Amino acid sequence: MSASNQDGHDEKFKRKAISVKEGQAKILSFVGKGEQERVALPEAQGRILAEDIYAPHPYPHFRRSGMDGFALLSNDTIGCSTDKPVFLEVVDEIPCGSLPSVSLIPGTVARIMTGAKVPDEADAVVMFEMTESTESQGKAYIELKREIKSGSNITPVGLELKEGDLILEKGRRLSAGEISVLATFGIYSVPVIKRPLVAIFSTGSELLGVEEPLQDGRIRNSNTYMLASQIRDAGGEPYILEAIADDLATARQKVQEAFVLYDMVVTTGGVSVGDFDIMADLVSGEDVDMLFNKITMRPGSVTTGAVKDGKLLFALSGNPGACFVGFELFVRPAIGTMLGISQPFLKEIQATLGREYVKVNNFTRFVRGRLELEEGRLVAYPAMLDESSVMVTIKDSDVLIVIPPSSRGVQPGERVTVLQLPGAR
Amino acid sequence: MSASNQDGHDEKFKRKAISVKEGQAKILSFVGKGEQERVALPEAQGRILAEDIYAPHPYPHFRRSGMDGFALLSNDTIGCSTDKPVFLEVVDEIPCGSLPSVSLIPGTVARIMTGAKVPDEADAVVMFEMTESTESQGKAYIELKREIKSGSNITPVGLELKEGDLILEKGRRLSAGEISVLATFGIYSVPVIKRPLVAIFSTGSELLGVEEPLQDGRIRNSNTYMLASQIRDAGGEPYILEAIADDLATARQKVQEAFVLYDMVVTTGGVSVGDFDIMADLVSGEDVDMLFNKITMRPGSVTTGAVKDGKLLFALSGNPGACFVGFELFVRPAIGTMLGISQPFLKEIQATLGREYVKVNNFTRFVRGRLELEEGRLVAYPAMLDESSVMVTIKDSDVLIVIPPSSRGVQPGERVTVLQLPGAR
Repeated sequence: MSASNQDGHDEKFKRKAISVKEGQAKILSFVGKGEQERVALPEAQGRILAEDIYAPHPYPHFRRSGMDGFALLSNDTIGCSTDKPVFLEVVDEIPCGSLPSVSLIPGTVARIMTGAKVPDEADAVVMFEMTESTESQGKAYIELKREIKSGSNITPVGLELKEGDLILEKGRRLSAGEISVLATFGIYSVPVIKRPLVAIFSTGSELLGVEEPLQDGRIRNSNTYMLASQIRDAGGEPYILEAIADDLATARQKVQEAFVLYDMVVTTGGVSVGDFDIMADLVSGEDVDMLFNKITMRPGSVTTGAVKDGKLLFALSGNPGACFVGFELFVRPAIGTMLGISQPFLKEIQATLGREYVKVNNFTRFVRGRLELEEGRLVAYPAMLDESSVMVTIKDSDVLIVIPPSSRGVQPGERVTVLQLPGAR
Repeated sequence: MSASNQDGHDEKFKRKAISVKEGQAKILSFVGKGEQERVALPEAQGRILAEDIYAPHPYPHFRRSGMDGFALLSNDTIGCSTDKPVFLEVVDEIPCGSLPSVSLIPGTVARIMTGAKVPDEADAVVMFEMTESTESQGKAYIELKREIKSGSNITPVGLELKEGDLILEKGRRLSAGEISVLATFGIYSVPVIKRPLVAIFSTGSELLGVEEPLQDGRIRNSNTYMLASQIRDAGGEPYILEAIADDLATARQKVQEAFVLYDMVVTTGGVSVGDFDIMADLVSGEDVDMLFNKITMRPGSVTTGAVKDGKLLFALSGNPGACFVGFELFVRPAIGTMLGISQPFLKEIQATLGREYVKVNNFTRFVRGRLELEEGRLVAYPAMLDESSVMVTIKDSDVLIVIPPSSRGVQPGERVTVLQLPGAR
C-alpha cells in the first residue's frame, strides 16, 4: 500500500532484483542458531529440540511378558501333546511392576501379567487360555497340551531401542510421539531452542486500529495480526509494536530500539510520505546492511532483507497477499534456521495444475492455491483472486503454486511445483 | 499393561465387540457442543470459531487505486496517441489513507498512491511511468500518449467480499488467513468455543514417575504426557491428575470428582490387581453408562467408552501404541465435536502400500506408518514394529494404515485406506 510496492521507484532506491533462492541463501548466511533453554516436559510440545537425545538405557529394559499367562522353562514342555499333557506347578505370581519372588526350577511356572518382568530362568510365556488350572494336594498346577517354543511371548530387552541409540535428533519438533519417548527415558527437563523474539512494526498512515470504526479511504491494520500468527506458527514469539509514523528519524530510532530488545524485526508496508519511502531509506542508511531490496517474484517483489549486528530486518509489503508470501518465503525460514530446524523452507512437492493460470509473468509467481487429492493424484487449484492486494484468499490456501516466468501461462494438466503452507491444516 | 488388555477376560467383563465406526457413532450421540467464550484477536490462533462471521461491510470498502499514478476521467484520453498527446492538469495529491481534497473536472487529474481512495469523478488510474510531468505557468501537468480504458487500475468496491457475505464459518480453526480477515473487519473480540477440560488418569502400580530413577520390572509413566500432548493438539486443555491406585473405591471416588471439575475423563491402563480390572468394574457399575468396552480393532481392542451426566469417560489401554490409536480414533473426534469442528475424524485418504503387511488379523488393524509421495503417488509404509506395546514408532508415524481383517495380509502395491494424523507435521 505504499510507494515501495512498485517498480517505478526502483531506480531511485537502487533496487537490483535477485531470485528467491538467492535471497534465501543470503539470509541464511546471516542467521545464527538461537540459544538453548530447558523447559518442563508438559511445556515442550511444539518446541524444537536443542540436542541429540540418546537412549540412556535399552527399551524395554527388562524381559517383558507380552501376554497374561505363565512364565515357564520351554524344556519342560518338550514332547507334550493332547495325549501326553504336562503338569507344571505354579510357584509365583508376578503382577506388573513386581519382581519374581522365587527362582523357577524345572517343573515350575509363574503366573505373570502382560507387561511384567519375566523371571530370569524362564524362556517363554504361555497364554492363560492355552492352559487348564488344576490343584493337587493343596498345590496349584497348570496342565499344558502342546510344546511351547523358547522365546514365545517374551519381548526381549532392547527390542525397541538399544542403550546409546540416537532416539531424537536436535532440530526435531516435539509432538505426542517425541514426548512419549522423552517421558519413557525419564527426560523431564527438555533442552529446546529459545523462541526468537520477533518485533512487528506496521507502517503507513492509512492504517486504522482493528477496533477503530471504519473510515472512508482507510483500511484496518490486519497485517500485523496476520504476521503475529505466522510468527507464532513458525516457532517465534511475536511482539506487535506501535505503528511507525511517517518520519524517518523516528522510524530509525524505533527500529534501532527494537534491534536491542528483539531477535528479529519485521515491518509491513512502506512509510510513504509523498514520494518518499522511509523503509527503503532506512535500509539504505548506514544503520543496517541491506541484503536485498528486490526479488524476482510476484507478489512481493520489493520484499527487503537487511542485517544489523547479526540480527535480521525484513521489510515486507503492505499488501496482504504480498506480505503473507514474503513471510513464508523469507521470514519463516529465518526463524526456522534460528531454531535449528534442518528443513526450514516450505516443503516442495509436485502436482498437476487443476485450472489454467494465464497471467503473463516476467517474474516467478507464487500463487495462493489449494491442493486436492483426486484419484491418487495431487491437483493444485490457483485461487480465483491472487493479486498482491487480495486478502480473502489467504485463508483458503494451503499451498503456493510456483508459476515460472512465462508469456503464455500454464494450462490445466501441466506439472507444477507447489510449496506447502505449514500454517494451514 | 494390564489384565484388561487381552481377550481372556472378555467373558468376565461381558465384553461385546463393536466396530470402530459403531463406537464413534455412539460417542458422538452423547457429545454436546462446548460453551462459547470471547478471546482477543492475538489469542485466537488455533481456536475454533463459535459463530458464522458475515462481512459487516464490503471489502474493499472504497474504490482503491491499484497503482501509483494519476486518477483521471478516461473520456479525457479519447483519441490521444504518440502523435496527439493530451495534457491534463494535476490538481490534487492523494496519499494512502487520505481523501481527495477537490472534485475532478474534465481536464484535471489527481496524483494518487497505491491503495488510496480514487476520487468519485475519476474512472481510471494511469500508471506513473506512462506519463511525463511538465509545468506551464506555475501549474503541473501530465502528458499522456495513449488512451486509458475506463476502470483501469481501480479495484472496485466489494471485489473481494460483498457486505453480508459469509466470510468465516463456525467450526473453523483460526490460522493466519482467518486472523487477517477478522482484523480486516474490525473483529477484535472473537467468539470461540471453550477448550474442553480433559482430566487424565494413569492407572497401574508398575508406573514410575518420569523423574524417578529406573527400577527393574517397572516402566515410566509416559502415556499421560503423550495424552496431554494429543489433547492439546486436538484443542482441549489437559490436566494430568494423580495416578489412580489399585483400589476400586478410591478409583471410583477420584473419577467422580473429575467428572465434576472437568468436561471429559481419559484413563490409560487398567488397574490390575491380580485378575481384577478396576476400570472395567468402574464402567460396569451404576455410576456411569457403558457405551462400549470392546472394539473390533488392533491395537486397543479393549478401549472403553462410557458416559455420565453427559460427560464422556474413555478408558484407554496402557500399551503406548494402543493408547495412542485409541485416542486418535475416539477421543480426538469427541473433543473435535465439542469444539464444533464439522470433520472431527482423522482425514481418510487412499494410498498404495509400500511394504507388505502380513500379520493375520481377525480385527481391523490400524498400523502406524509413514506416507511418502513417490512419482505423484501416495505410498504408505507400515512401521517395522507395530505391536500395541511399542512406543518408539509413534514419533515417526504420520498416518494410521487401515488393514482390514484378512487371513493373508496385504501385499506391496495394493490399495489401502490411511488416516492422517494431524498431530504430526
